Amino acid sequence: MHIIDKIKNIIQKNNSLVCVGLDSEFSKIPAHLQNEQYPQFSFNKAIIEATHDLVCAYKPNTAFYEAQGEKGILELKMTCDYLNVNYPEILIILDAKRADIGNTNNGYVKFAFDYLQTDAITLHPYLGQEALKPFLDNSEKGAIILCRTSNSGSGEFQNLQVGDKKIFEIVAEKVINEWNKNNNCLLVLGATYPEELKSIRTLSDNMFFLVPGIGAQGGDLEKTLEAGLNSQKSGLIINSSRGIIFADNSEDFAPKAREEALKMKVEINKYRT
Amino acid sequence: MHIIDKIKNIIQKNNSLVCVGLDSEFSKIPAHLQNEQYPQFSFNKAIIEATHDLVCAYKPNTAFYEAQGEKGILELKMTCDYLNVNYPEILIILDAKRADIGNTNNGYVKFAFDYLQTDAITLHPYLGQEALKPFLDNSEKGAIILCRTSNSGSGEFQNLQVGDKKIFEIVAEKVINEWNKNNNCLLVLGATYPEELKSIRTLSDNMFFLVPGIGAQGGDLEKTLEAGLNSQKSGLIINSSRGIIFADNSEDFAPKAREEALKMKVEINKYRT
Repeated sequence: MHIIDKIKNIIQKNNSLVCVGLDSEFSKIPAHLQNEQYPQFSFNKAIIEATHDLVCAYKPNTAFYEAQGEKGILELKMTCDYLNVNYPEILIILDAKRADIGNTNNGYVKFAFDYLQTDAITLHPYLGQEALKPFLDNSEKGAIILCRTSNSGSGEFQNLQVGDKKIFEIVAEKVINEWNKNNNCLLVLGATYPEELKSIRTLSDNMFFLVPGIGAQGGDLEKTLEAGLNSQKSGLIINSSRGIIFADNSEDFAPKAREEALKMKVEINKYRT
Repeated sequence: MHIIDKIKNIIQKNNSLVCVGLDSEFSKIPAHLQNEQYPQFSFNKAIIEATHDLVCAYKPNTAFYEAQGEKGILELKMTCDYLNVNYPEILIILDAKRADIGNTNNGYVKFAFDYLQTDAITLHPYLGQEALKPFLDNSEKGAIILCRTSNSGSGEFQNLQVGDKKIFEIVAEKVINEWNKNNNCLLVLGATYPEELKSIRTLSDNMFFLVPGIGAQGGDLEKTLEAGLNSQKSGLIINSSRGIIFADNSEDFAPKAREEALKMKVEINKYRT
């Protein structure tokens, strides 16, 4: 299935633009799970069971699994397998922020799409389109290019002026006009910069944007939606990680995560009618 | 030990600027090793035993290990452990090309420095200095920032003009003048762009540059050395991956790798006297 069809189908089915970031840092998961054989997987499974009808996507960030070595990688795979078996319609975004030269990117393609069987991967733009060809060529998988990231220092490079444009605007234009031949590109635009999100939305009504930075990072949901929704009242995949998965760290963490995800879904959908 | 002391010590001890890239792609390693329990590790061990007195560094690229899933990550760790136990003076560069927001980079720090115990990691500059703080703060570990990469399409962004400078020049200036407070930064400058290497060398005589692109990628060793050596006839860590490790894929691959590494070391040292 084309990646964009998969995205549109799950947004429609669950009536949700919510993405839950599975940033399941070992030291932050509830104490009663830390002694289990597969603590990160057990945690993720509970979060998934509590929220799967409320989301369009899950987004595990590789850093939190790599931190645990080969065991973490196995638990990341177990998480993706669990999703693919039980909820195959839900998008899995591998937040890996990779990008190497072309020949080497084939290794990351195998990791993300053959081994983990995720649906999309986040990518740095710095090496250019030619290097990212192994990702861009596969219309069944999403290539989500970093454009304006949510961190406070992202402007150091992303706001540099190239002629009458900023670098993040050039990234957006290149991705929208040149890299997206297979209609499988998305852009990362942080919720912490709604003005920038708004300016990029004017360049493409169709393209989906992955929006991190809601919740713990301080991004504002209302401003994000006013700036980023397209003419279909869609076009955004809005991520919250810590604000949902670590809303509570007692044995009741899962129902509390559901509560936060539901609140976010309802709040978003107020702006979509 | 400060990372720069470690680099200088091994360059002096082995009288070598050669870095061997352990891009040990499973499908390319000799057939007789592919059925072993740990084929990537067995291959690396043989390459290390054949070349350890000729190099200043080994540079495994994570993509080729991630492609094999959790087993590949384990074999990457076995490779790093083998080096740390047997040749602790040799630099291990994790070619991972990571970079996320600060909080998340802590996970990659754990992966690279606590779990794998490597000495340095390659990083994308796009998120800026603030995001890379977890790497920049540790003076015992090298932060190797991508500046002008070796791929043919690297100019798409890296050559964009910002005022009277190109983006890769701005990256170099920022790293040299602002990010390098702990004297632990290096830059990646591809051998395929000797003019660019030369222009960045004029900005810093002291900084070490990691130079990929020799060998299979077509970079010219003579031009690289003329452009990049500093006033001490040093300052470069010159990588060859496929040209050394896959010089031969029979059972004699290891002596053939030694031959190629020795040839490269001798050729480089002609320009250092």
